[in-house]
Amino acid sequence: MEPLENDRFLRALLREPVDRTPVWMMRQAGRYLPEYRATRERAGSFMALCKSPELACEVTLQPLERFPLDAAILFSDILTIPDAMGLGLYFAEGEGPRFERPLRTAAEIDRLGVPDPEQELGYVIDAVRTIRRELRGRVPLIGFSGSPWTLSTYMVEGGSSKEYAHVKGMMFDRPELMHKLLDTIARSVTSYLNAQIAAGAQAVMIFDTWGGILTPRDYREFSLRYMEQIVAGLTREAEGRKVPVILFTKGGGGWLEAMADTGCDALGVDWTLDLGDARRRVGDRVALQGNMDPAVLYASPERIRQEVVTILDSYGKGSGHVFNLGHGIHQHVDPEHAAAFVEAVHELSVPYHD
Amino acid sequence: MEPLENDRFLRALLREPVDRTPVWMMRQAGRYLPEYRATRERAGSFMALCKSPELACEVTLQPLERFPLDAAILFSDILTIPDAMGLGLYFAEGEGPRFERPLRTAAEIDRLGVPDPEQELGYVIDAVRTIRRELRGRVPLIGFSGSPWTLSTYMVEGGSSKEYAHVKGMMFDRPELMHKLLDTIARSVTSYLNAQIAAGAQAVMIFDTWGGILTPRDYREFSLRYMEQIVAGLTREAEGRKVPVILFTKGGGGWLEAMADTGCDALGVDWTLDLGDARRRVGDRVALQGNMDPAVLYASPERIRQEVVTILDSYGKGSGHVFNLGHGIHQHVDPEHAAAFVEAVHELSVPYHD
Repeated sequence: MEPLENDRFLRALLREPVDRTPVWMMRQAGRYLPEYRATRERAGSFMALCKSPELACEVTLQPLERFPLDAAILFSDILTIPDAMGLGLYFAEGEGPRFERPLRTAAEIDRLGVPDPEQELGYVIDAVRTIRRELRGRVPLIGFSGSPWTLSTYMVEGGSSKEYAHVKGMMFDRPELMHKLLDTIARSVTSYLNAQIAAGAQAVMIFDTWGGILTPRDYREFSLRYMEQIVAGLTREAEGRKVPVILFTKGGGGWLEAMADTGCDALGVDWTLDLGDARRRVGDRVALQGNMDPAVLYASPERIRQEVVTILDSYGKGSGHVFNLGHGIHQHVDPEHAAAFVEAVHELSVPYHD
Repeated sequence: MEPLENDRFLRALLREPVDRTPVWMMRQAGRYLPEYRATRERAGSFMALCKSPELACEVTLQPLERFPLDAAILFSDILTIPDAMGLGLYFAEGEGPRFERPLRTAAEIDRLGVPDPEQELGYVIDAVRTIRRELRGRVPLIGFSGSPWTLSTYMVEGGSSKEYAHVKGMMFDRPELMHKLLDTIARSVTSYLNAQIAAGAQAVMIFDTWGGILTPRDYREFSLRYMEQIVAGLTREAEGRKVPVILFTKGGGGWLEAMADTGCDALGVDWTLDLGDARRRVGDRVALQGNMDPAVLYASPERIRQEVVTILDSYGKGSGHVFNLGHGIHQHVDPEHAAAFVEAVHELSVPYHD
């Protein structure tokens, strides 16, 4: 592997000194980019795009051609694991992800196996290898997975949900069954992320998109606990460097302290928290990644720069901050505004690192 | 007006001693009840139901016939005010509320007037009078409104939204215009709620459904500030009793202290907070209303009772707690489970009030 030209992102995650604040954007390879829409069109379907290592590599690199981002993130979907478990993932036009065979019974959950990442998920691991090669050491590559709780919501509901009737019904009435399911998913995520690391991912992120719909007690018992299990099972060093782990629970601002105690290296933070408050709460236990409201990118470039300063000021001096949006970039954002954002972070963050 | 037979709800909101914890459910008059669906069918449309004082009264009283609830809440919609302002509210089948004429320009916002509640919103005020008469003093009647910020999201977007591109774009790039709009809405809400109080509402609640999508700074400036303006302008006594004011920001758990400082009497709390923590944070400044995860009602009656005890224990002894769900009751809940919930609160809360 070629040596890293820009390791600002990895250094900030480990709270080591950097020359400026690194920046990337969740969903930076996505629908707001016309070149992404063209590749997606060529692939024929979203899943065909995910399942082709060459096309996944192509869209992963697209935003790096436009913006001087400090990290690339594997283009994939969080639902690859349940698909590999045999649930039959498909995307109904305009309706989001669906599973042909949602999990409702103990027998269905008992039958679930842990997928072999090099077999059933080989297309993802191949994509990681392809992207690492094509990146040629420019910036680090982030691997990722959904959290066990988040994956379980789709697996039990059979798709997206507003009320979570089935999965919460199972959690409240059959907690032992829910734990069995979550343990199987956690073991699958661990093996999946370790395969991504072995194939070249230099940091990994766990997306707990739906942890924020739980009570504090249920979050600890049904979401955080399994992310902690994963963190404990991950390969933490590769190619002679540490492999940082980032946890992100959307809407999890109330639980930062507990998240920081899992042994991870960094926490993703959404925009409903003041970043300075978040830093005071976690102290020097973890780095923080975030947290600009993605809707700021609808505003003028001047207003975007102003918001970048507000967030840099809120975090304050010193390393340990990876600039990002508090959630994925919206599909109707003008790419020029994304460019203004990335440039503002690099230009305006220098004084925070002297 | 006939004297109140059961004033437990009003007493708890003012932190006065009660014999047991009062309970009601957000959206208690709603689609989970077959008798509601029958009346809604008879009305022809949701708006026809809202606009008929007799039918609105009928559905308001339906849950009280089934369950020994401690309060009734006016059946209406938060979007009556923008409709009265001339935006043209309609409901597209299966797509939620829409406005024919969303607000996008300064000229459109300049033209907005404050509706006269007895004229353009007379059907709501008549519904309050009808319900008070038909309640015959059984329990208090709650009036309500959406918060200015929440109403502005629908008025600027033209309906429900996921990304809030237009309203947040306006907030970031044209804050003076946004403030003008919010001030007009706040004056309208104040006059609307005062008319509800004059017509017989014995407590009022402000629903800030979308305050939780803001940063802490934007929440204070664009949502909380206008709720504070409303609280300062409300009639706080009627028929020789105090009229308590409840504020509820969904996802606003990080901001309870600031909300408690607005001069309101109580805060609605969703289930992402531990109620005991919330009580410690607000001290004796306000009462708390909440906060069971509505999805618990999918679980067995035994599990529901167990969760009721957990929440009663979390709040602890003494008055100042109105039991409720942390959000509206879901439409697929079995009414028998709602009955088990209400019964559990009454039966199991007695020891917390000795």
